[in-house]
Amino acid sequence: MTTAVLLIAHGSRRAEANHDLVIVADRLREQSDYSIIVASYLELADPSIPDGARQCVEAGADHVLMMPYFLSAGSHVTRDLERFRNEAAAKFETVSFDLCPPLGLHPLMLEIVKDRLTETGGS
Amino acid sequence: MTTAVLLIAHGSRRAEANHDLVIVADRLREQSDYSIIVASYLELADPSIPDGARQCVEAGADHVLMMPYFLSAGSHVTRDLERFRNEAAAKFETVSFDLCPPLGLHPLMLEIVKDRLTETGGS
Repeated sequence: MTTAVLLIAHGSRRAEANHDLVIVADRLREQSDYSIIVASYLELADPSIPDGARQCVEAGADHVLMMPYFLSAGSHVTRDLERFRNEAAAKFETVSFDLCPPLGLHPLMLEIVKDRLTETGGS
Repeated sequence: MTTAVLLIAHGSRRAEANHDLVIVADRLREQSDYSIIVASYLELADPSIPDGARQCVEAGADHVLMMPYFLSAGSHVTRDLERFRNEAAAKFETVSFDLCPPLGLHPLMLEIVKDRLTETGGS
């Protein structure tokens, strides 16, 4: 089975914010064994999620992990992502698509907060 | 010196999204030595940043670390946060206010992404 990672950010008019996801994709390429890693955006930037899904399939994936790079995913975003997943699954019948949880309240998020505080003079 | 942490999220109409920051504040209370920790919101939820800053000062802080719980902070958000910092510093002259970097591309963010992928069937 060839598993692809389709990273998904919200997308912004600011190129800098969109570029963050490209950096995450690059780091994931360096620090994981996933052979297919594509960055995509829910809106306002390219590639779109359907285009990203197609890139994963064309690169040979038969399993795509859709990973939302969101702190939290509200009902609106969750509904959009589920719709994109269902559309991709219907279009590429031999490929399975799974939607990951967003970054959310992962325990490491607190370590990041603590680091940022220390960097700025905290204890 | 008594250092307070003023956590700042964007704020949402969704109570669930706002509650995430309350959980982060609770975890930080359990897992750090900061004696004053207040959650606040840039917009759409209470307390506001000025109210949160006042709470920190009233609790006895003479140093406040303003910590943006944002994946990235664009120029608009950064400008707003700097304005709130300057206003708080002008209002409470004996207290110093420092603005931390947002969560951003901290190396641990990649560990969170990798964990989410593994949880969803990735390698």
